[in-house]
Amino acid sequence: MTLRAARMADIEPFHVMALLQRARDLEAAGRSIIHMEIGEPDFPTPAPVIQAGIRALQENQTFYTPATGLPALRAAIAQSYAPTARPDPGQVVVTPGASGAFQLIFGTLLDPGDEVLLADPGYPCNRHFVRLFEGRPVLVPVDADSAYQLTAELVRRHWTARTKAVVLASPSNPTGTTVRGAALKDIIETVHELGGMLIVDEIYHGLNYGPAVESAREYSDALCIVNSFSKYYGMTGWRLGWLVAPQAYVDDIDKLAQNIFLAASTPAQHAALAAFTPEVQSELQARCEMFRQRRDYLLPALRELGFNIPVEPEGAFYIYAECAAFTDDSYRFALDLLEQAGVALTPGRDFGHHHPERHVRFSYANTLDNLKEGVRRLGEFVAR
Amino acid sequence: MTLRAARMADIEPFHVMALLQRARDLEAAGRSIIHMEIGEPDFPTPAPVIQAGIRALQENQTFYTPATGLPALRAAIAQSYAPTARPDPGQVVVTPGASGAFQLIFGTLLDPGDEVLLADPGYPCNRHFVRLFEGRPVLVPVDADSAYQLTAELVRRHWTARTKAVVLASPSNPTGTTVRGAALKDIIETVHELGGMLIVDEIYHGLNYGPAVESAREYSDALCIVNSFSKYYGMTGWRLGWLVAPQAYVDDIDKLAQNIFLAASTPAQHAALAAFTPEVQSELQARCEMFRQRRDYLLPALRELGFNIPVEPEGAFYIYAECAAFTDDSYRFALDLLEQAGVALTPGRDFGHHHPERHVRFSYANTLDNLKEGVRRLGEFVAR
Repeated sequence: MTLRAARMADIEPFHVMALLQRARDLEAAGRSIIHMEIGEPDFPTPAPVIQAGIRALQENQTFYTPATGLPALRAAIAQSYAPTARPDPGQVVVTPGASGAFQLIFGTLLDPGDEVLLADPGYPCNRHFVRLFEGRPVLVPVDADSAYQLTAELVRRHWTARTKAVVLASPSNPTGTTVRGAALKDIIETVHELGGMLIVDEIYHGLNYGPAVESAREYSDALCIVNSFSKYYGMTGWRLGWLVAPQAYVDDIDKLAQNIFLAASTPAQHAALAAFTPEVQSELQARCEMFRQRRDYLLPALRELGFNIPVEPEGAFYIYAECAAFTDDSYRFALDLLEQAGVALTPGRDFGHHHPERHVRFSYANTLDNLKEGVRRLGEFVAR
Repeated sequence: MTLRAARMADIEPFHVMALLQRARDLEAAGRSIIHMEIGEPDFPTPAPVIQAGIRALQENQTFYTPATGLPALRAAIAQSYAPTARPDPGQVVVTPGASGAFQLIFGTLLDPGDEVLLADPGYPCNRHFVRLFEGRPVLVPVDADSAYQLTAELVRRHWTARTKAVVLASPSNPTGTTVRGAALKDIIETVHELGGMLIVDEIYHGLNYGPAVESAREYSDALCIVNSFSKYYGMTGWRLGWLVAPQAYVDDIDKLAQNIFLAASTPAQHAALAAFTPEVQSELQARCEMFRQRRDYLLPALRELGFNIPVEPEGAFYIYAECAAFTDDSYRFALDLLEQAGVALTPGRDFGHHHPERHVRFSYANTLDNLKEGVRRLGEFVAR
């Protein structure tokens, strides 16, 4: 018998992990597997960032930093925003990944029973953070008609006396869709009017292939932005992110950060200082262009095979595809595909409760050659 | 107006931070300050660990690891325990600092209202973690008669139907005292009998100057051990720790780690693999010997000045001293000492509610020369 908190029954593992383990077993047995389930860029950290990390270590930069991060890094992050969206460096809090930023926000905001609205499908950890602090994640089903994003109208419809916050993710994992312009502005104004906090997950910012995606800070300073060095900057394993918060929240966030993290990784913070140089920025833009080419290949190829992708994904490196033409059990489909054709996908159930059985997520964090081979195998598999 | 969770009223900042800021301001204005408030070793990370970190970066080890950590590191940590206390590597979970380990344990265990017994004085973050997950930290006043540690008798006396866990810290921050042998065994058996979970904070293990301090795992496998590369291994800024849990808890802990951290820092994990080499171990033992010399100097010197230190501190790098001979307000005392004599201490209020106004914490994470100068200044100050 174990002493187990009730919340653990509501917090789900990544279901793709079982699939990944099977993929590794197959690979260990000599099978070739095409990975289209991966949630991190296939590019390593840019060389100048690596070099800055090495220099920091050579200089013994191994002691704690302030809980909110190195002042120089907070300033550099602030400076990375467009002038019309730029925060004061004092509003920027450096965190151990975007995960750390979500912990600080929800820990600071949520009392037990407080509700948080999130899009379903969405990144599962976000709702689990809400549950972790005894809040109640309210999964709002979203469909192609709103580009799989919340709308001001949906926010209003699901708002209750207990609603305290709304989470947007743009570009979104798993759908790659964005919320921009008037739609974004509408949501911001609605959440303000209703007296809640809007949290915008911008960790895939920079990786977008359609119209420019502006930071939600273009429209308001009274919201929380979560961002990260993981995806655009290619620094997943370093575990470094940030949070931009309204000034009135920073003292509480600092206090909580002192207590639950002490600080983010010191070598990672020094390395990240190099991420804003023109050299690295042009490297990152070149990578973004490669992601665009992959999307431009994969999207029509999947549609050709019979996957239904009603909204063009504009960012991140994901395509969320309806696979109802082939199966009414996307998890089984993913297992069979792996076993019989050697292609790994993420089944819909990792992203919520709104028709997960009809959806799978493709990641194009893989080379164009591998994606082509994946599509070839997929074509054979669905033709059987 | 901010949307603020009730818990934020119960989570305190490190009060020493205000003092530290003032110390920095004084230093910036040219004043010499002797730092005896610091909670991290003054030694940098050992060179072979730094080198291993640099190699990892050169090899682009910048991607996510499994949520529970690199298998090789889990095995090396397991192997670092005495054979009689050695866990299975599968019980070892690598975490972002000991902070991460506490989050995983309390997140997994605590329902709202669940009580956790902790010694007062003690490290404040531990009780704040309990509060973070809506548990109720029960601060048990401890005094010199139990070496500032909980006892089986105290555990029994404070146990209620809602008590779920007990936290021990040995060696303790702020007191440097330990709980060993029969006293430790007694507590373990009592908590088992009462049906709770014992969590033993062993982050200062290795830094002990009296009789050997055994891991609590010598007596039981059915408890949680928190440890860290920060203090003994000199890796504070890397943010790397670990947790040893009973096997039945590991799946839940893994699931929570996936969701709230993804994983600990990859470069840090690769660097830490070098921490167990004989070369590093002998360097760490030499550092331990230097800490011992500092303690052996500072302890009688403080007693000589009139500080009351009834229990000999046996570990960590702290001396918890009663300063009632000089003041009934240790916070004021620390402020005045800083301002007038240029010595920084941590006031008792950072460690709980049991007579904080009569206590201060001295850290000897500073050179012997600096400690001597600190004592000289302190002597002049208290003689005024």
